[in-house]
Amino acid sequence: MGEFELIRRHFQRAPATGGDGAVVLGIGDDCALLQPSPGHQLAISSDMLVEGRHFFADVAPEALGHKALAVNLSDLAAMGARPLGFTLALALPQADSDWLARFAQGLFALADAHACPLVGGDTTRGPLNLCITVFGEVKPGQALRRDAARAGDDLYVSGRTGEARLALEQLRGTEWAGTAVEAEARARLERPTPRNALGVALSAVAGAHAAIDLSDGLAGDLGHLLQASGVGAEIHLPALPVAPALQGLPEARRLECLLAGGDDYELLFTAAPEAREAIALASADSGTPVTRIGRITAAPSLRLLGAAGQVVPFGAQGFDHFA
Amino acid sequence: MGEFELIRRHFQRAPATGGDGAVVLGIGDDCALLQPSPGHQLAISSDMLVEGRHFFADVAPEALGHKALAVNLSDLAAMGARPLGFTLALALPQADSDWLARFAQGLFALADAHACPLVGGDTTRGPLNLCITVFGEVKPGQALRRDAARAGDDLYVSGRTGEARLALEQLRGTEWAGTAVEAEARARLERPTPRNALGVALSAVAGAHAAIDLSDGLAGDLGHLLQASGVGAEIHLPALPVAPALQGLPEARRLECLLAGGDDYELLFTAAPEAREAIALASADSGTPVTRIGRITAAPSLRLLGAAGQVVPFGAQGFDHFA
Repeated sequence: MGEFELIRRHFQRAPATGGDGAVVLGIGDDCALLQPSPGHQLAISSDMLVEGRHFFADVAPEALGHKALAVNLSDLAAMGARPLGFTLALALPQADSDWLARFAQGLFALADAHACPLVGGDTTRGPLNLCITVFGEVKPGQALRRDAARAGDDLYVSGRTGEARLALEQLRGTEWAGTAVEAEARARLERPTPRNALGVALSAVAGAHAAIDLSDGLAGDLGHLLQASGVGAEIHLPALPVAPALQGLPEARRLECLLAGGDDYELLFTAAPEAREAIALASADSGTPVTRIGRITAAPSLRLLGAAGQVVPFGAQGFDHFA
Repeated sequence: MGEFELIRRHFQRAPATGGDGAVVLGIGDDCALLQPSPGHQLAISSDMLVEGRHFFADVAPEALGHKALAVNLSDLAAMGARPLGFTLALALPQADSDWLARFAQGLFALADAHACPLVGGDTTRGPLNLCITVFGEVKPGQALRRDAARAGDDLYVSGRTGEARLALEQLRGTEWAGTAVEAEARARLERPTPRNALGVALSAVAGAHAAIDLSDGLAGDLGHLLQASGVGAEIHLPALPVAPALQGLPEARRLECLLAGGDDYELLFTAAPEAREAIALASADSGTPVTRIGRITAAPSLRLLGAAGQVVPFGAQGFDHFA
């Protein structure tokens, strides 16, 4: 008990009640109480992170605290919902005060940057496991659902994809990726930037239709969006933004990173062509680069197009595992 | 992937969208979307259950599904919040279809009984771990907070306490508890009944002030309520409701079960004496027995009183671990 009281102290900060936030009652009662803005809908997402599966045992605790919240914030971003708060449930094999302090530091730095306070949770002894549930709000009809893409829509991606995958291969010592781990690529893997400002800005654009966040790779997650919307897409491969770290890779590996990387936490979204100016404004206002990479088609297939407009087959590119 | 697609299927039911509930969008997108009633506050609680700590490895999966949700619903009950929905994050060492089907059966039976649909979550491979986050709604000012008890309030408990503890000792083979496990007591341990109808009814009683749900034992949880409210209490021991299964126990053991049992998931609450009639009505309307067991005092201590009004010392009763 005393040990777990210690754990709680790392997460018990000045109560986030009253003031300018939505939190009526924070940590310490049977429930937290939030007051959403009048008429708004509540967006909810929950992710569980397990050692060896979602992170390495030797990951920096600050990075783990950051990433555990970032992947949840990214789900809110993909709906266009403004963050309100989150709960953290934590199973720990033992209470290591230094580890906890560093984990909390990474967690709260990101929470503060998004005005998304910790409102409750649970701690228990057990194999290391982190479960964060995050809450946001969005006006009715403005949520960016993955089933809302329409034939003729432009297809956009925020930022750039593939660096997290490159860093993962570098950490694994994969031959093609080399062993010199790029600091920037590693930061993309361990401290992803959720695109909440962009998501909220897009939710206010009338012509913005569907969105999904990229956790499993661009092509795979696009597949989920297309399936939910009953449409297809063409990606113009030369339009994909390529990070400097990826430019020296063999073409097949570069495409694998770009399209099947995973852990990107960028937004993939669709919008009517008439909304191009509004999308550019949302990008500028949120300080988030976006790139138009293709379009949504009525034919329910995903086609990759090369520089000359030719269809590039999936299998030949070494990423047939998402075909 | 295929394996975890299988897992998801056990939890993917007819989409709980539209219709009479608050669910705008259920499982399958980046976030679930809920529409709370106009002006209501949102109540949120999250609990993590770990094998060996919160349940035995050989517990019936139906019972585990029931209990994982019940302990969360109980937190909503203690705030007087009406359930809206929940998320489930689940780490499993392997996908055992029979186990999952039975777990889902227990989970959904309780969810349906409380009109509290599963709206999202996560599944991953890892040591068995269940994290449920539950959402409810309550009118502003009606939440039953644990810091709201006032000197002079009556002190009530719903149902009766101690049977879960007796069953736990029986399952452990403790000498004093005997080895003949009482079916009713075991049901109290493995399938607790969250008191949501009572909690919602109490939230509408103007004189009802503070509440807490009993997870760690009556005396210990009362201590949390008293500390949060800056008050004390007297419990009239002969007033405590005693289950038939506890009546044959030595007095010290009986009191230990009643006061320091744990896993009771009853509501402990306070109300002004003027509200006695309204409390009786809330009890009748919700079909939940409640018993007045003492009163809140200005002096910030907890006193146990015997039949003749004498103070019964804590230490002598074998439950000094909550003193």
